[in-house]
Amino acid sequence: MNYFSSDFKLGILGGGQLGKMMLYETRKWDVWTKVLDASPEAPCKISCDQFVQGELLDFETVYNFGQGLDVLTIEIENVNLDALERLEKEGLKVFPQPRALRIIQNKAKQKLFYVDHDIPTAEFQRFAYLSEIEDSINNGGLKLPFVWKVAQFGYDGQGVKVVRSLADLQGLPKGECIAETMIPFKNELAVIVARNSKGETKTYPVVEMEFHPEANQVEYVICPARIDDKVATKARELALHVAEKIGLTGLLAVEMFQTQDDQILVNEVAPRPHNSGHYSIEASYTNQFEQHIRCILNLPLGATESKVAGIMVNLVGAEGHTGDVVYENMEEILKLEGVTPHIYGKKQTRPFRKMGHVTIVNPDIDQARKTAQQVKETIKVISK
Amino acid sequence: MNYFSSDFKLGILGGGQLGKMMLYETRKWDVWTKVLDASPEAPCKISCDQFVQGELLDFETVYNFGQGLDVLTIEIENVNLDALERLEKEGLKVFPQPRALRIIQNKAKQKLFYVDHDIPTAEFQRFAYLSEIEDSINNGGLKLPFVWKVAQFGYDGQGVKVVRSLADLQGLPKGECIAETMIPFKNELAVIVARNSKGETKTYPVVEMEFHPEANQVEYVICPARIDDKVATKARELALHVAEKIGLTGLLAVEMFQTQDDQILVNEVAPRPHNSGHYSIEASYTNQFEQHIRCILNLPLGATESKVAGIMVNLVGAEGHTGDVVYENMEEILKLEGVTPHIYGKKQTRPFRKMGHVTIVNPDIDQARKTAQQVKETIKVISK
Repeated sequence: MNYFSSDFKLGILGGGQLGKMMLYETRKWDVWTKVLDASPEAPCKISCDQFVQGELLDFETVYNFGQGLDVLTIEIENVNLDALERLEKEGLKVFPQPRALRIIQNKAKQKLFYVDHDIPTAEFQRFAYLSEIEDSINNGGLKLPFVWKVAQFGYDGQGVKVVRSLADLQGLPKGECIAETMIPFKNELAVIVARNSKGETKTYPVVEMEFHPEANQVEYVICPARIDDKVATKARELALHVAEKIGLTGLLAVEMFQTQDDQILVNEVAPRPHNSGHYSIEASYTNQFEQHIRCILNLPLGATESKVAGIMVNLVGAEGHTGDVVYENMEEILKLEGVTPHIYGKKQTRPFRKMGHVTIVNPDIDQARKTAQQVKETIKVISK
Repeated sequence: MNYFSSDFKLGILGGGQLGKMMLYETRKWDVWTKVLDASPEAPCKISCDQFVQGELLDFETVYNFGQGLDVLTIEIENVNLDALERLEKEGLKVFPQPRALRIIQNKAKQKLFYVDHDIPTAEFQRFAYLSEIEDSINNGGLKLPFVWKVAQFGYDGQGVKVVRSLADLQGLPKGECIAETMIPFKNELAVIVARNSKGETKTYPVVEMEFHPEANQVEYVICPARIDDKVATKARELALHVAEKIGLTGLLAVEMFQTQDDQILVNEVAPRPHNSGHYSIEASYTNQFEQHIRCILNLPLGATESKVAGIMVNLVGAEGHTGDVVYENMEEILKLEGVTPHIYGKKQTRPFRKMGHVTIVNPDIDQARKTAQQVKETIKVISK
């Protein structure tokens, strides 16, 4: 198959920032692309060869979108899986495979999969309805505090809440959910695994999420993680194990906890390029988006090592700002060495919305960390 | 001026591969762009916000294209300068400035500029018509051999010829041209200078063009050049001097000869991102396309140092192949570490047409050079 010609047609479900960064790579290789997204202002509206506006969760829309494609991939897992399964049955290559997405799309199924395959993960209980949680607390079956997670369609912190009292359950979605034991972790780590259809695999270095001391929010994604080599090796092996058990073609981002006694527990996975891999555009020999394309086109995998240390800072909408976005002090951060802002192109900002990210690279990780802090303290995403 | 919002409008004259690679950067920063190119199949057709099909040398077309823009730049210097001057008079920011393009667009003017500003360059004579060269040879005013160069609108090796006998003049364009003394150079070098409107400047490391031992054709662009530091410093200083004398805003690629006695002579310049800077996408802290955008938007300049050694191999159409392009053995080169192909997206190949390039990066320049040779010997650009 000649991917590098307009005979070949790649479809992407979702036209957000992940799709947009994927399109840098398809443009680089002149791979023909068609993108489906519900928003007429999707970041992927340009840079693809064909843009289709439509609902990712609608069977007909996704099924029709898949007609005439050679390969279909995703940039977001909340898509209509029945349509993908039908398309796969009819011979379309769908990567990651619908089978893998079924396991991952539902957090309860995902957790059960870990249990079934002896993959270490935090203890949890599954509930068909939120109301069952209350009963379970009342009859002592479930101890406070715990982490509530909606089973499906949570995103960007939505759908996850620490529950310390019954009151915390107020206003949560009523449907299927899980209650997970809180893990007093030493570090939150992530590893991206790449796997092509031949079954060739590679893992990226372990990254570390550094949290804000007060606000319980990831501030920096740091590559390589500043952890013991043995722990890093254990994390990469576990991530690889998960990817092979799921057997997916594409990228699998595996988020993990490093416990106080250096156990590694799988928190959750994403079957696609991931926020924790954005640093790779500037720091790695092969960035995660090119690697994803290599996986789904069954090409040889690229080197996952880093040229330099990389740190990523998310650009999220400032609190108290909703409306037309303005990036304050952009010029200030452009004065700093090794700083690359990425602006996703969302026209409207709102508190905590992911509007972009900034990568800081440096041969010296401590210098990169200092610069990252300057960036964090300088740039603001506000409204006009 | 808020560049990072759709209020700001950037125009680009030319929609070829340089424009295409510029658009990766405008997309990265969500800068609104409009592109003018004569071809409906231009590589820039997608990825810009608006594409206009039209002739770059037509006054009306370029003048109308400039209406409503905030900044206008180029990816090729063969554009209608009268229109640019008119637009500049009417207040449009045109970078590089038409004044600078006037000097550079005509090779005879360019050479005279060097002479007027004591910039070392090969000796030359200027001729209004090709026929005058023949007369000059006959009356002994011009000695064979020499390098004939068309004054205007030469590109990709077109418009340059080594003349060893009168017969070599057959079939050359009749118009204005120069005859340049042949320089038996030790190395052909290039330096890219970045300059924003504030007059801030930075130079990239010196690159070296390595020629094929038999065919007199550049095979590899190597960064950093494997030359003495003193020579490298002299080359960077000379390039900076040229850029400041021209006083242009944007990038200036300065091609130079290193003579047998280590003098540096300016060969020619290009007022834009340049083939000799393609390595920077994978190897540099700030790639030349982002740097160009920083210059013309008057943003702080980015670091020009390299993360790793970089070597660039042009992908040109193989001899004897004309028609729908096929990239043979692409998968083979993707197996090699640190190898990144760039496919420009031209649908038709013909002998020596620039269809793409491949960058090879490695911490060890000798290993990069070995890999580059493997790439060169493996991939072929042929027709179906």
